Amino acid sequence: MAIEGTDTAQTRPIRLGMVGGGKDAFIGAVHRIASRIDGAYELVAGALSSTPEKALESGQALGLKKDRTYASFADMAKREARLKDGIEAVAIVTPNHVHYPAAREFLKRGIHVICDKPLTSTLADAKKLVKAAESSSALFFLTHNYTGYPMVRQARELVQSGELGTIRVIQVEYPQDWLTIEQDNKQAEWRTDPARTGLGGSTGDIGTHAYNLASFITGQLAESLAADLQSFVPGRQVDDNGHVMLRYASGARGMLWCSQVAPGNENNLKIRVYGDKGGLEWHQENPNYLYLTPFGEPKRIITRGGAGMSESIGPSTRIPPGHPEGYLEGFANLYKDAADVIRAHQRGEDLSSLVPNVEDGLAGVRFIDACVKSSSRNAAWVKLDG
Amino acid sequence: MAIEGTDTAQTRPIRLGMVGGGKDAFIGAVHRIASRIDGAYELVAGALSSTPEKALESGQALGLKKDRTYASFADMAKREARLKDGIEAVAIVTPNHVHYPAAREFLKRGIHVICDKPLTSTLADAKKLVKAAESSSALFFLTHNYTGYPMVRQARELVQSGELGTIRVIQVEYPQDWLTIEQDNKQAEWRTDPARTGLGGSTGDIGTHAYNLASFITGQLAESLAADLQSFVPGRQVDDNGHVMLRYASGARGMLWCSQVAPGNENNLKIRVYGDKGGLEWHQENPNYLYLTPFGEPKRIITRGGAGMSESIGPSTRIPPGHPEGYLEGFANLYKDAADVIRAHQRGEDLSSLVPNVEDGLAGVRFIDACVKSSSRNAAWVKLDG
Amino acid sequence: MAIEGTDTAQTRPIRLGMVGGGKDAFIGAVHRIASRIDGAYELVAGALSSTPEKALESGQALGLKKDRTYASFADMAKREARLKDGIEAVAIVTPNHVHYPAAREFLKRGIHVICDKPLTSTLADAKKLVKAAESSSALFFLTHNYTGYPMVRQARELVQSGELGTIRVIQVEYPQDWLTIEQDNKQAEWRTDPARTGLGGSTGDIGTHAYNLASFITGQLAESLAADLQSFVPGRQVDDNGHVMLRYASGARGMLWCSQVAPGNENNLKIRVYGDKGGLEWHQENPNYLYLTPFGEPKRIITRGGAGMSESIGPSTRIPPGHPEGYLEGFANLYKDAADVIRAHQRGEDLSSLVPNVEDGLAGVRFIDACVKSSSRNAAWVKLDG
Amino acid sequence: MAIEGTDTAQTRPIRLGMVGGGKDAFIGAVHRIASRIDGAYELVAGALSSTPEKALESGQALGLKKDRTYASFADMAKREARLKDGIEAVAIVTPNHVHYPAAREFLKRGIHVICDKPLTSTLADAKKLVKAAESSSALFFLTHNYTGYPMVRQARELVQSGELGTIRVIQVEYPQDWLTIEQDNKQAEWRTDPARTGLGGSTGDIGTHAYNLASFITGQLAESLAADLQSFVPGRQVDDNGHVMLRYASGARGMLWCSQVAPGNENNLKIRVYGDKGGLEWHQENPNYLYLTPFGEPKRIITRGGAGMSESIGPSTRIPPGHPEGYLEGFANLYKDAADVIRAHQRGEDLSSLVPNVEDGLAGVRFIDACVKSSSRNAAWVKLDG
Repeated sequence: MAIEGTDTAQTRPIRLGMVGGGKDAFIGAVHRIASRIDGAYELVAGALSSTPEKALESGQALGLKKDRTYASFADMAKREARLKDGIEAVAIVTPNHVHYPAAREFLKRGIHVICDKPLTSTLADAKKLVKAAESSSALFFLTHNYTGYPMVRQARELVQSGELGTIRVIQVEYPQDWLTIEQDNKQAEWRTDPARTGLGGSTGDIGTHAYNLASFITGQLAESLAADLQSFVPGRQVDDNGHVMLRYASGARGMLWCSQVAPGNENNLKIRVYGDKGGLEWHQENPNYLYLTPFGEPKRIITRGGAGMSESIGPSTRIPPGHPEGYLEGFANLYKDAADVIRAHQRGEDLSSLVPNVEDGLAGVRFIDACVKSSSRNAAWVKLDG
Repeated sequence: MAIEGTDTAQTRPIRLGMVGGGKDAFIGAVHRIASRIDGAYELVAGALSSTPEKALESGQALGLKKDRTYASFADMAKREARLKDGIEAVAIVTPNHVHYPAAREFLKRGIHVICDKPLTSTLADAKKLVKAAESSSALFFLTHNYTGYPMVRQARELVQSGELGTIRVIQVEYPQDWLTIEQDNKQAEWRTDPARTGLGGSTGDIGTHAYNLASFITGQLAESLAADLQSFVPGRQVDDNGHVMLRYASGARGMLWCSQVAPGNENNLKIRVYGDKGGLEWHQENPNYLYLTPFGEPKRIITRGGAGMSESIGPSTRIPPGHPEGYLEGFANLYKDAADVIRAHQRGEDLSSLVPNVEDGLAGVRFIDACVKSSSRNAAWVKLDG
Repeated sequence: MAIEGTDTAQTRPIRLGMVGGGKDAFIGAVHRIASRIDGAYELVAGALSSTPEKALESGQALGLKKDRTYASFADMAKREARLKDGIEAVAIVTPNHVHYPAAREFLKRGIHVICDKPLTSTLADAKKLVKAAESSSALFFLTHNYTGYPMVRQARELVQSGELGTIRVIQVEYPQDWLTIEQDNKQAEWRTDPARTGLGGSTGDIGTHAYNLASFITGQLAESLAADLQSFVPGRQVDDNGHVMLRYASGARGMLWCSQVAPGNENNLKIRVYGDKGGLEWHQENPNYLYLTPFGEPKRIITRGGAGMSESIGPSTRIPPGHPEGYLEGFANLYKDAADVIRAHQRGEDLSSLVPNVEDGLAGVRFIDACVKSSSRNAAWVKLDG
Repeated sequence: MAIEGTDTAQTRPIRLGMVGGGKDAFIGAVHRIASRIDGAYELVAGALSSTPEKALESGQALGLKKDRTYASFADMAKREARLKDGIEAVAIVTPNHVHYPAAREFLKRGIHVICDKPLTSTLADAKKLVKAAESSSALFFLTHNYTGYPMVRQARELVQSGELGTIRVIQVEYPQDWLTIEQDNKQAEWRTDPARTGLGGSTGDIGTHAYNLASFITGQLAESLAADLQSFVPGRQVDDNGHVMLRYASGARGMLWCSQVAPGNENNLKIRVYGDKGGLEWHQENPNYLYLTPFGEPKRIITRGGAGMSESIGPSTRIPPGHPEGYLEGFANLYKDAADVIRAHQRGEDLSSLVPNVEDGLAGVRFIDACVKSSSRNAAWVKLDG
């Protein structure tokens, strides 16, 4: 057991702004906590709601200065870019359809963007955002936060170092149950409205996490997919359950299930990867353990921080094994890694990181788009590359 | 805790014969143990191998009388039918392609048949066997043994009593790993030979168990399916991994995964069923527990023999909760139930039971056939009803 | 995966009698099933109840011949010993206080005894029974059935081969909940009556199993113990919860907890053993898995029949890994092993086996006796060796 | 699923100092992260090491101003108390023997103390610290951090609301394995040195956590205990394994096991509590689940934030169910609650909280002291009340 805590607050915190995340929001608070855990950011500005009064009120509640609480992201981007101590990065935590227009404004002005997933609500927007990011001097990070879990990174390293041999089968699933019946809270409302969430429902909200996780661990993107999507709850306009078969260029095959109507599942994201030499398994709800079975040997339980963990994973974990880290620490790893990349960038250096980028975001929107297309064609195979 | 053991050896044991199950066989020994557990059968005759010397040798090893150890099932059917104390039932535990011809001989002569799954190696044979069974005075039982597990029967009862509401989603999987690399033992040999096993590999050997389990619990047969089958091991002639999407007439949808190349999985059959009122989950490898979540309530663990188990399940279990029953006891439940039906039949009574019958067997072969067809058509939807 | 079923019915079954195990009994039915699983015994005689009418009725229900259904064990011992095809072995499954007098009668007449635990209801009886066994030509087997589980035998082998190094700590527990409130069924009645069960309640009924399990796996008997016993349910005359600290001559230390008043525990027997090189863990309620952690390495899951299991354990298991075996198969291993020893004995050979013997039984009664003594002396340390 | 994130950064952060927690320290970094998670504190001063150069270096690494990086806690207490914007609270995260002298200095000057456990390294110091806290205008908080886990608080509420009935049995254990062999890192060094850690080794470091957890959940302190402590690793001066039997005034009985030499255990703290109406179970390594069994009903899994959780627990959790919170969030709950109490105190209000206080700390040291005393008297019963 390595007993050591880490702290990255060695240097001045990065000045952070936030778009979205006001009262009644969920993911904004998560981003704020994640940004604070390692002390690498300081939240100094916000356009926290699309309703100006709410934006102001939310800013005050968070202790923001009044003159840095904005009524719109456009105002914030303009003014902060001109301030001497303006924000260096912005977290975009709005409903999906706002990701593209907001990100564009900040990228345009050289402010780094940390954006929630999925990248955008439409494929067209996603492609435009890729261009915007490519032509900007600023950096773009996408918070597919499950990639921040240490044992997910360990899984990726095991696959990439060949421990599993040639990958044959990928099984990934993300069932939830909170939309089993009609819900009228704010979270449910926008997530089931195609205008704000995009065409995919469960596929966009969680299926895209599952797809990204499989790609992150295996290093492979699907070539084509066949999807059978359902909207089980009467009147629902987007899918709340999706069954997807995947084909990878390497010959590997996958299945992906996402659901918001599976009672008894909270955030039951799980992935299993099988190659000709071994298999591995990881569960989000108990994320400190990774199960590895080299073919013909007993299953081994690799623990976060414990025996069997690769040295390279060390910086992604804070506390000794057996003291569980969770969702917020995994999320914080993305913020911490992004801070390292931003600081290197500020020093003129180019640092690579494991944080998903705009291309990963585009791949995710392609996935959603292909699911919706395939399902509308009776689950015909649809390519993801175009 | 109900402390009570049960024993069904109250009456004369049923005289049983066996076809297959000689030296080096696997499932024959399982059938023999299952038949002994409740003392309801006595093995008195056998045609244990297609090789006459092996048949004789195997019969002696099992303590059978020499004159009741036969060189072929045909000989056995003919002679036993004429004996005054000839066999009343026969267990057929051969490779799949022998099921039909063997069953036909015994059914023709009024000897009850207990047959291993899948019903037959071809759909044509399956249809002929249905007719043979219908026109026989004898009974036909199919050992889809997982239906014998008490908690599987409990799951079925919960679904049928409406505890889950309208069924929406069925997730069933049966991964193994023993064929991850090429194997040269007897079990692997016939199971990967299309002439003996049939066109389906993993779909026929274990996918059909998974499909049957879903039908047994939900009371529904799929209307159509789309299957993407793979043969990952070079040179293998049948599928060793199958991804299947299912559509049920009720509007329910399912996913089924079967694999023999998933390292770290022994016999990892698992089923999850979700309705608009609740969900349930059962794992074959730890079969004494059933997880039930009424939507909006905490998950409950129903234990075999314990609180939450329905009274009707009582006769399917032998010992108090916390003392695990396993595969053999589940299998024995089919033998015990079949014995009850056979004895009732001998008394001129008609007793219904939960043991799968020839129609369930036909449904299983339809499933295999549809999987192979769909996969050969690029996973197009194929109906199962024809 | 070794795919092979085993069957030991190669030879004539051993003729078995039974004392106890009539209507309303529990453990008798378990013994009967265990004796049948491998086809090595045939039940032909019984003195199934201390009430003559019940004895007769129970015998008929089990299909025994009328003239071999006895009103008392004394009658049975006398007459069967004289019959040409009299019983070769007897299973004693009565309440504890009858074990000694019954066993004595059969041992005296050269009939092998398979006796349920604890050996006797008093230490004096236990010592006399040891002498009776020693001076008899017949064999004595004690059904501490948990020693029959394959993974328990695997644990023993790992300890004895030095995989854990020098043993330091043993943690064993056996909580149940069925006596949380007063019960009035037959099982509860005699188990809480000191005249029939002995001075120990939970210590005698299940603590002795836990203690035996620790001894079986580690090969060590405790030198002394300190016990704090409680009778939580008002009016109960024997302990229903026991806390015990153990000291072994080797310097190892242990804790043992037994309880019949711990809601949520069915038969939650669990053992953990730690040495200076590694640790292991086994749970009776999911008995097909053994957890082994060599110090400094990831935990490994050894599965019954799977990778990591020693070859020597093979004969203690019947079916491939992933198809769970349970309580009855573990119990049946004792019957199977006893049959092998009996047959060898009949051939004039001396076969050693893992089945607990009369000395193990005496150790168990010493444990109970020491617990009761220690508790009556305010949990002072009491030696077990005298 | 309640989708809502919480953030407590509504007001000016509390100015925090730290004693200990410099380079190579472990728990200091944990306290810093815990203090940041909810944005309620700002670290502005430190006496981070007993070595002045290291103290300075560590302060710089954490971004502290040079003039607020002190060479000793005495200097810090004196100067900060005089500063207009001096620290309002101090976190004491040194080896145990420094807790008392450091806490005394700050309490004397009206600076609130957040102190790591155990309270002190000797019982005499503990009693003096109680007096110091009582006579101070400042508040004292002890970070028995496991009490901050939401499901631990839920367990406490269930017990106190009578769900389990009268408590009979408490089983608590905290095994680790990191001291299985001799270690020469800084953490191991002071933790095995009686002069710094106190007389208890594993009992003081982790046994006291286990004991506190049992008290927190059940609301009961033990009246007496019998302890058998061992130092298995040759040359070790303090216990590395402890077996303890507990008696409570209410009639409840307990067992406590702590170990640092149990291979395969990282921080495997686990508690089980049984009453005459039900039982519960909680595991630190998977802390988002609480298992509750009302006697005679199926076991229920209560999830953090999910169905079955009491409303009162809401403020102790940040994110929706199924997204695990871990050790740091539990620890942060103590910091958050302490901040609420401190702010109320600053407003002249008296707010009660669940954070352990100096009396709880004294109870913990009494436990350690009694363990050591009992063990030296051959595990005789020792009272904890004097």
